[in-house]
Amino acid sequence: MGCRGEEPRRGQLTPSPLASRLRLIVITDARLASHGRVEGVVDLALDAGTPAIQLRDKEASTGALLPLALRIRQLTRQAGALFFVNDRVDLALAAEADGVHLGPDDLPVAAVRRVVPEGFLIGYSTDDPEEARRAVRDGADYLGAGAVFSTASKADAGRAIGPEGITLVARSVAVPVVGIGGITPANVKLLSRTGAAGVAVIGAVMGAADPARAVRALLQAFAP
Amino acid sequence: MGCRGEEPRRGQLTPSPLASRLRLIVITDARLASHGRVEGVVDLALDAGTPAIQLRDKEASTGALLPLALRIRQLTRQAGALFFVNDRVDLALAAEADGVHLGPDDLPVAAVRRVVPEGFLIGYSTDDPEEARRAVRDGADYLGAGAVFSTASKADAGRAIGPEGITLVARSVAVPVVGIGGITPANVKLLSRTGAAGVAVIGAVMGAADPARAVRALLQAFAP
Repeated sequence: MGCRGEEPRRGQLTPSPLASRLRLIVITDARLASHGRVEGVVDLALDAGTPAIQLRDKEASTGALLPLALRIRQLTRQAGALFFVNDRVDLALAAEADGVHLGPDDLPVAAVRRVVPEGFLIGYSTDDPEEARRAVRDGADYLGAGAVFSTASKADAGRAIGPEGITLVARSVAVPVVGIGGITPANVKLLSRTGAAGVAVIGAVMGAADPARAVRALLQAFAP
Repeated sequence: MGCRGEEPRRGQLTPSPLASRLRLIVITDARLASHGRVEGVVDLALDAGTPAIQLRDKEASTGALLPLALRIRQLTRQAGALFFVNDRVDLALAAEADGVHLGPDDLPVAAVRRVVPEGFLIGYSTDDPEEARRAVRDGADYLGAGAVFSTASKADAGRAIGPEGITLVARSVAVPVVGIGGITPANVKLLSRTGAAGVAVIGAVMGAADPARAVRALLQAFAP
């Protein structure tokens, strides 16, 4: 994975440095790991080279999540990793996260872009090339596309689009595209020629007996 | 409605203009009124002189709430009324609300104060004088204290503190204090000598057969 130009949102031909930091996004899941355990797994994942963490919790109150968010901010800063918060822009701002990851049920990308500081990263989930282009026009810095494979972590993830679905999205936009959904160390290699910058995983790391080993295996598919 | 001094957060002796705009906060409730109906009741309430609306919905996704929030912003702007959003600072910012109302499960007042623009209003719910003083030190512009009377709208509202509980909170801080919880046109007069700037109601307006009549009755207790 080469080191690359600046400013992913300007549709340059050379890939951005952001892409290299999205080789692997480890997404937290308090159902697979308790809050205390989430912090432990995040720590192990960062030690093993994870370049980005996303805090995702659809259940807990925003106030209850702030301590964990601040702790992940501290750990990611120490590791030089990116920190994203799923959905809750206010939590992302309060915890000084690098960005937020939005989906169709969250605030629209354009609305968020208007209220966040310069340089704040916005990711958006879609498996549709047209919606992908719209999200980028609205200010998305990267896209999450999937579910690539069928998955148990997200009940609402819809049908699997396969590696070829990732290729379609990746070809439609100039920003980095990350595959998500059902990705494991065993199948991640199927994504290495799709044009994806990397993958985002929940269960493959959060539910792993050996999270560090899982991280190293996942990173290998997008080795520089 | 008297016009008054400037800058409620500077602890002046003369009441602030903010206080006069907090004589009545009508809080939305999609269980008592459907989303379409919420908009209708808000419209009637504003027509009847409601000086502040708070959008509160613990169930819907933030994205799903944005259209209603933008509509309430439009209606409150036309009416010259304040618009607050409960809990979700990101929704408040995206809808250009005047402020947010926070409780113990939400982001802390100090954390929110750091990420919102100058002049953005922050309300905080507490029935405890010491917590009230801390919230004001942290940047709260007004307080909601209650439940004043027992209430069915908020299952987690705790024990009733009565009008005397409001007096205790109102005496402890220089910012406006609004009574909340179980307040109706029939009992609102009990709060008019507590030091409260006004009241916040959910069911008394959202569930009223005649919301405009309820608003007028509630406003009378805090007539200028």
